[in-house]
Amino acid sequence: MVFEHLALIGCGLMGGSFALAAKQAGLVKRVSGYSRSPQSAQRARALGIVDTVAPTAEECVRGADLVLLAVPVAATQATLSSLLPRLEAHTLVMDVGSTKQDVAHAAGQALGERLGQFVPAHPICGKERAGIEHADAGLYKGQQVILTPLEVHAAKTIAQARGVWEALGCKVREMPAHLHDQSLAAVSHFPHMLAFALMQGLMAQPEGEHYLALGGPGFRDTTRIAAGDPELWTDVLLANATAVNAQAKWFETSLLKIQGLLASEDREGLRAFITQASQRRADWQMGAQAPDSPAPSSD
Amino acid sequence: MVFEHLALIGCGLMGGSFALAAKQAGLVKRVSGYSRSPQSAQRARALGIVDTVAPTAEECVRGADLVLLAVPVAATQATLSSLLPRLEAHTLVMDVGSTKQDVAHAAGQALGERLGQFVPAHPICGKERAGIEHADAGLYKGQQVILTPLEVHAAKTIAQARGVWEALGCKVREMPAHLHDQSLAAVSHFPHMLAFALMQGLMAQPEGEHYLALGGPGFRDTTRIAAGDPELWTDVLLANATAVNAQAKWFETSLLKIQGLLASEDREGLRAFITQASQRRADWQMGAQAPDSPAPSSD
Repeated sequence: MVFEHLALIGCGLMGGSFALAAKQAGLVKRVSGYSRSPQSAQRARALGIVDTVAPTAEECVRGADLVLLAVPVAATQATLSSLLPRLEAHTLVMDVGSTKQDVAHAAGQALGERLGQFVPAHPICGKERAGIEHADAGLYKGQQVILTPLEVHAAKTIAQARGVWEALGCKVREMPAHLHDQSLAAVSHFPHMLAFALMQGLMAQPEGEHYLALGGPGFRDTTRIAAGDPELWTDVLLANATAVNAQAKWFETSLLKIQGLLASEDREGLRAFITQASQRRADWQMGAQAPDSPAPSSD
Repeated sequence: MVFEHLALIGCGLMGGSFALAAKQAGLVKRVSGYSRSPQSAQRARALGIVDTVAPTAEECVRGADLVLLAVPVAATQATLSSLLPRLEAHTLVMDVGSTKQDVAHAAGQALGERLGQFVPAHPICGKERAGIEHADAGLYKGQQVILTPLEVHAAKTIAQARGVWEALGCKVREMPAHLHDQSLAAVSHFPHMLAFALMQGLMAQPEGEHYLALGGPGFRDTTRIAAGDPELWTDVLLANATAVNAQAKWFETSLLKIQGLLASEDREGLRAFITQASQRRADWQMGAQAPDSPAPSSD
């Protein structure tokens, strides 16, 4: 599978890394780029990440056989609407957004009967540093990508979409959008909210800066995601608020439990609680398949 | 500064790594080891981490001019009491415990008028995998070590203690034990509690295993410390419960705030909250000095 022309809509970390990886894999021959920020698009060209810069999204997709939409999820509908007039009938369009129900809805609104050309995709990776300067040809390699196909999709379109990500070294899974959003709320969106709250809780304290100075490797890793892109995470939390709130409730129940064990000085109970968490985390492997039943994945 | 004989009391990750680093740095000539678990001590000898194995803590410190206590903090008093009969008057003793008020109290109970030989120390590092097999000569290099001197200590004893850690490549700071415990509750102990609670909150859900299968690099790093040693963390949370609970309150206030912003769909407020957290975390550097005032450190 080779594409003649990738149109990159949005020249940031995720889009830039995709373009680099796609070229490196021989998946695309040339890349046109558009960004709402002209500086980002120019920088993408200066860095050799895109070959040409287009003045509009519409111009960018002219003649493209592959389009990657790498914009904030809240901009999905407006962006797809703007590029639709020049979108050719055989062109495959995908996004990289962290939420999928809102993206599918926005795409339906924007594309109407041509929705079947757009396959919602979410590569589960990123960096705490946004921007095209941090684009990295290896960002996607070995990572999981979730596709959330709709009724409207032809099997060959989904197969083509899988092929794109597999060419980049990704493990591709398919599942309904609502299960994607529930799952990601649990392992990504709510943990980001936790990390933001942890930082703010420290910053609110009179001695907070002194405490921060004593953070070690554990603190570094635990709070790494708190440095995430504020625009992106504001969008994601709002777009997936229901599932995030559901995760907050599970977490609060769990936190109350360990606080209760501590308050009652229940050493045995506390050790059992920690041991279970510790063993499960020690056994956890990134990208490992979930057990058989009850499988939310249609993969 | 060179010591003839290091007595290592407790042959686990922290103690084993100290012995390896101390030998590599030319700080100690020979190492005797004692562990409550005979297998761990034998493994330490098999791995070349200790030169000889002693049958008791008392035997282990005979003739030693440096003692490192690397046992669970709850075992401090009993262990120091057991080795006291053979502890020579010029010997420097330190620990590596994650809490310091309880350790200072336990040391006072055990050592009485010889408390001045014991300098409470806490190297802010570790690994999620406990045990002598994971000992690592580089574990301490570049990390911060907090000493919490007492009134009873002679300046030259503290200088000698600093020298030991500096020889291992550590940055040494001094502060009162209660400030250490407050600070570490903020950046280590409470974050561990959060991570344990996050794992348990996921495990409690019917779909939890499927969610876990979709965790990416962010989840991996955020929950790394949840795999910590259950014995150690049970001890630490109980020993520092007051400060941990105080941190829980700050965190809960902060979490309620971001939940309120999300519930009211206050996009601007949410973005501001996340932006502050993100910028502070992006600017944070491990081991950087805290600002001047109000300095809790006596360093």
